[in-house]
Amino acid sequence: MNFEVVAQDTASEARAGTFHTAHGAVDTPAFMPVGTQGSVKTVSPDELHEMGAQIILSNAYHLYLRPGHELIAEAGGLHKFMNWDGPILTDSGGFQVFSLATLNEVTDGGVKFQSHIDGSRHFFTPELAVEVQRALGSDIAVALDECLPHGADRQRAEQAVRRTVHWARRSVSSERGDDQALFGVIQGGVHRDLRMRCVEEITAIGFDGYAVGGVSVGEPKQQVYEVSDYTARALPPDKPRYLMGVGPPEDVFEAVELGIDMFDCVMPTRNARNGSLFTPRGRVNIENKQYERDFRPLDEECGCYTCRNYTRAYLRHLFKCGEILALRLNTLHNLHFMLQLCAKIRASIVEGNFSVYKKEFLSTYRY
Amino acid sequence: MNFEVVAQDTASEARAGTFHTAHGAVDTPAFMPVGTQGSVKTVSPDELHEMGAQIILSNAYHLYLRPGHELIAEAGGLHKFMNWDGPILTDSGGFQVFSLATLNEVTDGGVKFQSHIDGSRHFFTPELAVEVQRALGSDIAVALDECLPHGADRQRAEQAVRRTVHWARRSVSSERGDDQALFGVIQGGVHRDLRMRCVEEITAIGFDGYAVGGVSVGEPKQQVYEVSDYTARALPPDKPRYLMGVGPPEDVFEAVELGIDMFDCVMPTRNARNGSLFTPRGRVNIENKQYERDFRPLDEECGCYTCRNYTRAYLRHLFKCGEILALRLNTLHNLHFMLQLCAKIRASIVEGNFSVYKKEFLSTYRY
Repeated sequence: MNFEVVAQDTASEARAGTFHTAHGAVDTPAFMPVGTQGSVKTVSPDELHEMGAQIILSNAYHLYLRPGHELIAEAGGLHKFMNWDGPILTDSGGFQVFSLATLNEVTDGGVKFQSHIDGSRHFFTPELAVEVQRALGSDIAVALDECLPHGADRQRAEQAVRRTVHWARRSVSSERGDDQALFGVIQGGVHRDLRMRCVEEITAIGFDGYAVGGVSVGEPKQQVYEVSDYTARALPPDKPRYLMGVGPPEDVFEAVELGIDMFDCVMPTRNARNGSLFTPRGRVNIENKQYERDFRPLDEECGCYTCRNYTRAYLRHLFKCGEILALRLNTLHNLHFMLQLCAKIRASIVEGNFSVYKKEFLSTYRY
Repeated sequence: MNFEVVAQDTASEARAGTFHTAHGAVDTPAFMPVGTQGSVKTVSPDELHEMGAQIILSNAYHLYLRPGHELIAEAGGLHKFMNWDGPILTDSGGFQVFSLATLNEVTDGGVKFQSHIDGSRHFFTPELAVEVQRALGSDIAVALDECLPHGADRQRAEQAVRRTVHWARRSVSSERGDDQALFGVIQGGVHRDLRMRCVEEITAIGFDGYAVGGVSVGEPKQQVYEVSDYTARALPPDKPRYLMGVGPPEDVFEAVELGIDMFDCVMPTRNARNGSLFTPRGRVNIENKQYERDFRPLDEECGCYTCRNYTRAYLRHLFKCGEILALRLNTLHNLHFMLQLCAKIRASIVEGNFSVYKKEFLSTYRY
């Protein structure tokens, strides 16, 4: 996977880049809408293209369980199955196995767990994680890692690093798809030395990009920034850096400043379905009485389908009625907001005024 | 409202026509997708246009209760509020008051009822029904009628006819919007003489079109056809005839044959959300195991967005996962199917082979 840094901020680690996949180029910093089960909730691939999404994320864990990776391979791969012709990154399932499933046993061999859907028993190994992602045909696969919740003690964190490195080696030795990149994951909790050790060993193995894992698992924001800071600095500058599961607009600014290139988060889509919408003034709850007779677009500056065609009063009405179109219009807006935010951040880096743009944005954005 | 019959079947009452509204022309027989609360569930106005919808139905009762017709008037009318620039027919609320609300008292003056949403008390009159529809700005308004459930005795049916006629007179005397057509409703249950009396009195008042009401309220299908038959024959041939709340494809064929020009039904949209999809072979349940590895489009002959882009296996996967996109893709297909069916029926009438087309369609369609 060819990654080029096209502009580097002088006052921070922020950078603008581009990487290339068999399904197209991706400009960074890039936000990846989440399509967990082979669908970005409520929206169509056409709409994703229209709002400027260049890459989406899908989950190996979910698709392995349902409908099964072999079925998707028979269908011609995930791109064809879900009718999305742009790049796809698949998460290995590491995070999901450790957060959604019932864990039975974790050994150096792999993870025994029970499905969160039907309780069926499974054994996930680094090799299987690669095999599943090969069957899905994603453009970027991620190596299986051991992901601990916040608060795990140092001993467990150390073991997780050792295991993540061991699994990373086995992942690299597994047969991937043609043109399929593989990212390694950095674990180590909030322990700087463990993170550094993990970076050293994982980068020694060598991957197409590096994901910072085990953040956004319950620790305070300041710790996420701290971990991201020293971890990102230690990673090779010529490979993309992906901060898993982050985040809201304010976090994206912080992470970009620390040298992060890629993000994914369910927040824009999940918030949308809860009626919480992004605006330059911060998040608003569309159900609020104050919008009852407000016939302005949600955001007058926004070019999304929702803001071009509907008023706050209509969005409120649909949401209060429980209309499915409300969830869809809200999602279109929130994703558009995040994607445009990344595009503007990128432009500001290229133009050499990232810190000005960040300050300007955060001066009006309430969170 | 200018209605022209452009072709008349020789072997039956089936006819093809066109009527004109301020928001465009409508070719008949016409199926009206239902947008009860100011949104055709799950789909956007762009998608409605793309699938060939020429007119949609919305409900005065629902919009009066929420968000309120005055709010929609402030928004610039229902077309602008919901971003649909084609024709809209609004149901008067008669059917909904009598089926959804808690009825408190029905007198010649009007209907006292309690909202199905919050139990609030309301008094609906023929004048208010016209006022609400004027505020909404629909292209076709419908006069308030008294709608009885199937099985109501003759005495009550007679009273409902008398009241419906009385209310129709008051509706005509109420001030409508500019370019707003008004349809009268024929009641009378399954009593032929009452239907005939109602036709006589309602047509004597004079409306832009006539709706056959009080069908699809629980009576056997054969009775719906019988009532539609003698009622449609008695109605003036130069005005559109609208059979309220009908129906599935097989019923549309029967009704067209009896001289009906317009239909509305929640079935295509509701079935879609339950995974029940129309095909030329009949309805299929997309959740069925047999579609698990079926990588063909739902209907290989269908030109809808869903069939052009997705497989049965994918639709089944999404539906089983409870993905909102499933409801949307299913709805797009079912509405497209109904609209195309009406377009094909119309073409067959124009080409003089309606009965051949009907026979051909029903020979493979299982219901």
